[in-house]
Amino acid sequence: MLARIKELALRYEEDTINMRRDIHKYAETAWTEYRTASMAAKGLAESGYQVFAGCEVIDEEAMMGVPDAPELKSHEERAVAQGADPLWLEKMTGGKTGVMGVMDFGKPGPTVALRFDMDANDLAEAEDENHRPYNAGFASVNKGAMHGCGHDGHIAIGLTVAKILALLKEDLAGKVKLIFQPAEEGVRGAKAMMVKGIVDDVDYMLGLHLGTSLRRLGQISCDAGGFLATTKLDANFTGKPSHAGLAPEIGKNALLAAATALLNLHAIARHGQGASRINVGIMQGGTGRNVIPANAVLKLETRGASSKINDDMHQKAVRIIKGAALMHDVQISLKQMGSAASADSDSALGEQARGIAEELGLFDEFVSREDLGGSEDMAYFMSRVQENGGQAAYAIIGTELAAGHHESRFDFDEAVLCRAVAYAAGVTAKLLTEKD
Amino acid sequence: MLARIKELALRYEEDTINMRRDIHKYAETAWTEYRTASMAAKGLAESGYQVFAGCEVIDEEAMMGVPDAPELKSHEERAVAQGADPLWLEKMTGGKTGVMGVMDFGKPGPTVALRFDMDANDLAEAEDENHRPYNAGFASVNKGAMHGCGHDGHIAIGLTVAKILALLKEDLAGKVKLIFQPAEEGVRGAKAMMVKGIVDDVDYMLGLHLGTSLRRLGQISCDAGGFLATTKLDANFTGKPSHAGLAPEIGKNALLAAATALLNLHAIARHGQGASRINVGIMQGGTGRNVIPANAVLKLETRGASSKINDDMHQKAVRIIKGAALMHDVQISLKQMGSAASADSDSALGEQARGIAEELGLFDEFVSREDLGGSEDMAYFMSRVQENGGQAAYAIIGTELAAGHHESRFDFDEAVLCRAVAYAAGVTAKLLTEKD
Amino acid sequence: MLARIKELALRYEEDTINMRRDIHKYAETAWTEYRTASMAAKGLAESGYQVFAGCEVIDEEAMMGVPDAPELKSHEERAVAQGADPLWLEKMTGGKTGVMGVMDFGKPGPTVALRFDMDANDLAEAEDENHRPYNAGFASVNKGAMHGCGHDGHIAIGLTVAKILALLKEDLAGKVKLIFQPAEEGVRGAKAMMVKGIVDDVDYMLGLHLGTSLRRLGQISCDAGGFLATTKLDANFTGKPSHAGLAPEIGKNALLAAATALLNLHAIARHGQGASRINVGIMQGGTGRNVIPANAVLKLETRGASSKINDDMHQKAVRIIKGAALMHDVQISLKQMGSAASADSDSALGEQARGIAEELGLFDEFVSREDLGGSEDMAYFMSRVQENGGQAAYAIIGTELAAGHHESRFDFDEAVLCRAVAYAAGVTAKLLTEKD
Amino acid sequence: MLARIKELALRYEEDTINMRRDIHKYAETAWTEYRTASMAAKGLAESGYQVFAGCEVIDEEAMMGVPDAPELKSHEERAVAQGADPLWLEKMTGGKTGVMGVMDFGKPGPTVALRFDMDANDLAEAEDENHRPYNAGFASVNKGAMHGCGHDGHIAIGLTVAKILALLKEDLAGKVKLIFQPAEEGVRGAKAMMVKGIVDDVDYMLGLHLGTSLRRLGQISCDAGGFLATTKLDANFTGKPSHAGLAPEIGKNALLAAATALLNLHAIARHGQGASRINVGIMQGGTGRNVIPANAVLKLETRGASSKINDDMHQKAVRIIKGAALMHDVQISLKQMGSAASADSDSALGEQARGIAEELGLFDEFVSREDLGGSEDMAYFMSRVQENGGQAAYAIIGTELAAGHHESRFDFDEAVLCRAVAYAAGVTAKLLTEKD
Repeated sequence: MLARIKELALRYEEDTINMRRDIHKYAETAWTEYRTASMAAKGLAESGYQVFAGCEVIDEEAMMGVPDAPELKSHEERAVAQGADPLWLEKMTGGKTGVMGVMDFGKPGPTVALRFDMDANDLAEAEDENHRPYNAGFASVNKGAMHGCGHDGHIAIGLTVAKILALLKEDLAGKVKLIFQPAEEGVRGAKAMMVKGIVDDVDYMLGLHLGTSLRRLGQISCDAGGFLATTKLDANFTGKPSHAGLAPEIGKNALLAAATALLNLHAIARHGQGASRINVGIMQGGTGRNVIPANAVLKLETRGASSKINDDMHQKAVRIIKGAALMHDVQISLKQMGSAASADSDSALGEQARGIAEELGLFDEFVSREDLGGSEDMAYFMSRVQENGGQAAYAIIGTELAAGHHESRFDFDEAVLCRAVAYAAGVTAKLLTEKD
Repeated sequence: MLARIKELALRYEEDTINMRRDIHKYAETAWTEYRTASMAAKGLAESGYQVFAGCEVIDEEAMMGVPDAPELKSHEERAVAQGADPLWLEKMTGGKTGVMGVMDFGKPGPTVALRFDMDANDLAEAEDENHRPYNAGFASVNKGAMHGCGHDGHIAIGLTVAKILALLKEDLAGKVKLIFQPAEEGVRGAKAMMVKGIVDDVDYMLGLHLGTSLRRLGQISCDAGGFLATTKLDANFTGKPSHAGLAPEIGKNALLAAATALLNLHAIARHGQGASRINVGIMQGGTGRNVIPANAVLKLETRGASSKINDDMHQKAVRIIKGAALMHDVQISLKQMGSAASADSDSALGEQARGIAEELGLFDEFVSREDLGGSEDMAYFMSRVQENGGQAAYAIIGTELAAGHHESRFDFDEAVLCRAVAYAAGVTAKLLTEKD
Repeated sequence: MLARIKELALRYEEDTINMRRDIHKYAETAWTEYRTASMAAKGLAESGYQVFAGCEVIDEEAMMGVPDAPELKSHEERAVAQGADPLWLEKMTGGKTGVMGVMDFGKPGPTVALRFDMDANDLAEAEDENHRPYNAGFASVNKGAMHGCGHDGHIAIGLTVAKILALLKEDLAGKVKLIFQPAEEGVRGAKAMMVKGIVDDVDYMLGLHLGTSLRRLGQISCDAGGFLATTKLDANFTGKPSHAGLAPEIGKNALLAAATALLNLHAIARHGQGASRINVGIMQGGTGRNVIPANAVLKLETRGASSKINDDMHQKAVRIIKGAALMHDVQISLKQMGSAASADSDSALGEQARGIAEELGLFDEFVSREDLGGSEDMAYFMSRVQENGGQAAYAIIGTELAAGHHESRFDFDEAVLCRAVAYAAGVTAKLLTEKD
Repeated sequence: MLARIKELALRYEEDTINMRRDIHKYAETAWTEYRTASMAAKGLAESGYQVFAGCEVIDEEAMMGVPDAPELKSHEERAVAQGADPLWLEKMTGGKTGVMGVMDFGKPGPTVALRFDMDANDLAEAEDENHRPYNAGFASVNKGAMHGCGHDGHIAIGLTVAKILALLKEDLAGKVKLIFQPAEEGVRGAKAMMVKGIVDDVDYMLGLHLGTSLRRLGQISCDAGGFLATTKLDANFTGKPSHAGLAPEIGKNALLAAATALLNLHAIARHGQGASRINVGIMQGGTGRNVIPANAVLKLETRGASSKINDDMHQKAVRIIKGAALMHDVQISLKQMGSAASADSDSALGEQARGIAEELGLFDEFVSREDLGGSEDMAYFMSRVQENGGQAAYAIIGTELAAGHHESRFDFDEAVLCRAVAYAAGVTAKLLTEKD
């Protein structure tokens, strides 16, 4: 079966690349992946999957960091103009741009889920002859949005895997769920799909990422981990303005509160149980030089080697922000803009996946337990499956990069797509043919 | 002579009001008063004054808080489109929008200077039927610029005073200098005209403001003072970005430096010799939640009851900002965006002016030594004249206001214009007829 | 009568000086003036006054900044060893070292109160041949306590005034109250006597101070004022220790809270209505370099040109301290260690007193409304009397000083004592002979 | 040979215990181990070692955190009174309380060094019948000094090991160096001995500690590691006092500088390469509530999982402290009070030592690579030997504890001493009999 999968992956290689380029060209950022998601839905439907979308796969309450309504609306309209199918969009209104294709193979067997993330970055793509997407004509036409993290590739891989599994369906048992998730950037989207319950019945959860620390074609880590748990917060301070010369004493200084919070947030004690992180990435406040500043915002994130450490950081951060507001008698409003749990691949499943990868003969270096180093909201799917007694494995698939992730010249070697397709389809097919 | 002046002020009342409305409609902010200044130049020339403009009255080095070149250019073009005389504009290129009209009366006598400020505020004017400029059709057509501090009135007063003094020239001795100053908001413009030397020969320096703390028609203070010395600073911190999860230690955190500076700036010790002020009105920094912030800006001001106190505050502020930058190994660039000296009216001249105001019979309440409470860069002209042995007097002329200064519904009772014209022309004429 | 008073002041000059030197030698600091107060009580009783002491003149609840019981006890024992009368001490247990002598002259007339403060400073007296108290053998024998603010002189003046008024009693009407107050340093004592009600019936309230800004014999200001209202606070933070290497995250860092409070306290906005002050004079915390610090204390004071301004500062300070404690999840305990109101002399009474001073012929320079520049808890007595419709006047009596107040070589010209006695007795006697 | 060593360890068990108790009773803290060191010197000499002491084994320049001269003097006198041999003390003047015994076995072989630390803690020992040292009469008679970290045991072990190796000398080859180091607490002493060069010729470096994380008799880790590199700093800020009411502006506020430093020190970014720590354990400053504080001290430490990380923390800390001083125009004096490198045991030597421990039959649980979790200046000896191509191994030897390290009721099971003697003598003897 692996031989056949390898052959199909090669047969569809050009399609996969074209799909990737189409998606790259119409890059859509978090919660606005209207066109992208409608393409995924269409692809899944064409391959014979039962397709769920929008509110069917997303819990609205659990969505984080969603743009405001007018912005969503304008992106929805742009998507239609760029070829999105309005029928699918109906379900996705309000940014609910998640999609899932399900195929039941009619024989007893495990449920295997694969997750692919879909959003582009808030990034202006390089306009430069040395940047292939630009000179090959598939650079983003949506200003300020660019696929700088390879999610365009992930989607294309997912849709080709869908096609291959559908072709193999006679030989497969159990059920497969192909999950296309919005808003991975800022770790905003996975939680809302997990909370909806779509992986509650899953036995094996698979995910993958191109590049990251593996920068050579042929490298693969089948059991990556070390995802840092994280929480993203916006803190808005509201004080009272007054003239800084005439009556400074009647002002309530939001910037003083915010600056005090900023300093003390960074001063949260290191954690003895493992790595922790805190960053206030953005601070803004005030309206005029001679006015006691009555507004300020902090955009921050905490991280932890474990969800427990991150929770500790998060709680301390909230306490510090509230205390700083109290000090200067200003109002405080806190909003959670994103979050991810910590997670690691299961060794057993990782081992099994590695065996399949070896058998495929497309990889020449197998890296054990490669550490992602950052955060990934795939962790929510993994944790839920693991809590229910299932297993999860996250793969990093090596490729040369033109520039680092999230940079304006980011690009990968498209030869990786075929390898990733074979790997993902191969592992899934194997899991769905084994006696459960 | 005062009777004649009063009569002329009344005769030109409608002209004065119309002039004010025209200027209000084409509001121009600091250093972009191209149309306004060209109107002033034209008016002065028509009244027979020798007119100096641009680099003739402004020292380019001493200009503070000037917009960048493209912005200046676009305002210049707008001014032409709105009727500015391109000939005058030639001299004013680069924001040098100052104008001075000089008339020598050919007989021995003192030199008297009057100063009128010309700039509008960075303010969106109210669009509301209850706001007279709006319903009477003279609201600002320049978005984001509004005469919210009465400088439109000041200019109109100045040009009518010019007309009246020209009509009286047979009876006058000495010399008069009518100074139309750009960029009073943010105290950015006076210093550059003072440094140019245009008041170095002045014996009597007069200035005025409508409203401020006197909110009733008929009130006047002829010897206002208590101007706080002030310095406006922008501090730009430049650090080094890095990924907040992977390598926070290689970042150089500009926001930490700026927040530390902000706190310590406010903590500068109070001054035992008189009032001092410090305010960081605006702080901004950072580019992304998960990036160690590599840039930050503070916009601040210091003030002091005396220039000495303000200098002490200013020096301490600079030291604190530099120390905060050093702490976090970030670069710091400081730019002075405005400044004003402390100043008080001379009692003798104030007394004399009050006598004239009483004689005019247009005022019913004389307030002694009213305190401006804020800063005014007129102080530079006053100080220079006083240092040279001359005298200065600053008048506040009462009027009801529709809303406070710098508010989007600001408006004054136009009946004050005629009174102010009579007062300013009256005092000047009296000084120019006395034996010196 | 003034002539007789002047003559008596001279007759008792040597006694006054000896009294001053005796008190200087046995210097006692705030709330431990056991020997000093018993001497005052004895002197008043010998002159025929009805003497009230301890709980009769002090409200225990309103005492601020009282040393702890063992320290009080040891000072009490020292006082007995140094000659204090144990009978008087019985009433004063617990630091209630206030004394008041009352004499009713049996004829209708006003009630006049004089206040003298009694405490020494926490100061090690200079041991140096150039320091007169040392070479003349009356330097403090109580280590760490020194009369460095002239209160030794004040007491001696008070007791001689008591003698003189008693000798004049046939000629006087109304009632006199001679108040000997403990704990003026740190403004801790007056409030407790005021709250007890001892000046509730007073028509004229008089106080005095030697030196301060008047540094020449012959100078006097009879209507001093500008006392800054003030509040003295101790803030104790209690967190939780933990090993800084092994488990920093379980500590609750009291020093971080205290340092944050300190910075923000100094950053309280200046007050537009008049002078304000804030100082954290002492900060201490922590037990070991490698232990998360679990304790910290701040000793601070606020001041204001008016009680209203000081109240505003005080409230903001409390809020900041509480917010800082909340930020780091540490407990906070606040204790008021002293306070004084703002106060000014009444012009009418000051004028009258000045007339008497002139008539005495002992002064050659009369300074009007000299500003004390600091705080004095005499303000509580003055405010209470003024609230009840009475008048108050505070005199500063000039003398050369060997060194500034609160310095280890402080000393004054003892010739000032006789002048001060004549002034205080003279003004009092005059008030008690006038038709009320 | 191991059997004989085991037998000797048992034979001397009572002596070892008595030695430990004697040292416990006369506890001496860092750099004042005059009596302790003279006992060690005497013991080594009696066993036939060549003894080096004081300046022969310590580089004076490299001593850190040494008490001042009067304190050293008084401890030296106390040591003599408590039985120290004055002859040895001569060499140790100025706190140079290190000792080394060397025995050359006259046959070619490796050089093996063992290090034992000698100092007690700044700790008041519990006076309580449940505390064995107290009820058995060997509690510390030196107030404020207590062996709360087991170094008393270490010394006793070292001297018995010395005896045993001397008895076995016929069978040994190479050279042994027994190092008795002062001032391990605060990591102040090892560097000065290392810099002196005493381990420059060493092939195998051995060290041990009782207890720490192994809390059961029978446990041992022969290859402990994970020592955190650390630096201990004192920062003294010196400003300028002034009266907080009259002239706050002329003060230079050392507490503001120190508090700013404290906050920013804790805010140093976490390190992406491994654990880092920062703690300001103590902060003190100011002299009076109403005086701008002119002095402040911070006592702090940095740590890092590697020396490189600690160096980064240390450099950033110094920069922050200097910047904070600059901000408030105060002087700063920094003093390094202690430091340690990071270190790990060599696997090969650890393995070998474990084999010997197993063979001895005195241990029943072998813990691999136990992490010390804190800092140990033994790391300096280990690093130097490793840099020179030698090997190092640090053992943790398990024992029940009455209370944790550095607590006033700390005590260990003395049965561990005999086991530790056998282990240390056994490993050393084996290394000295092997063909090199």
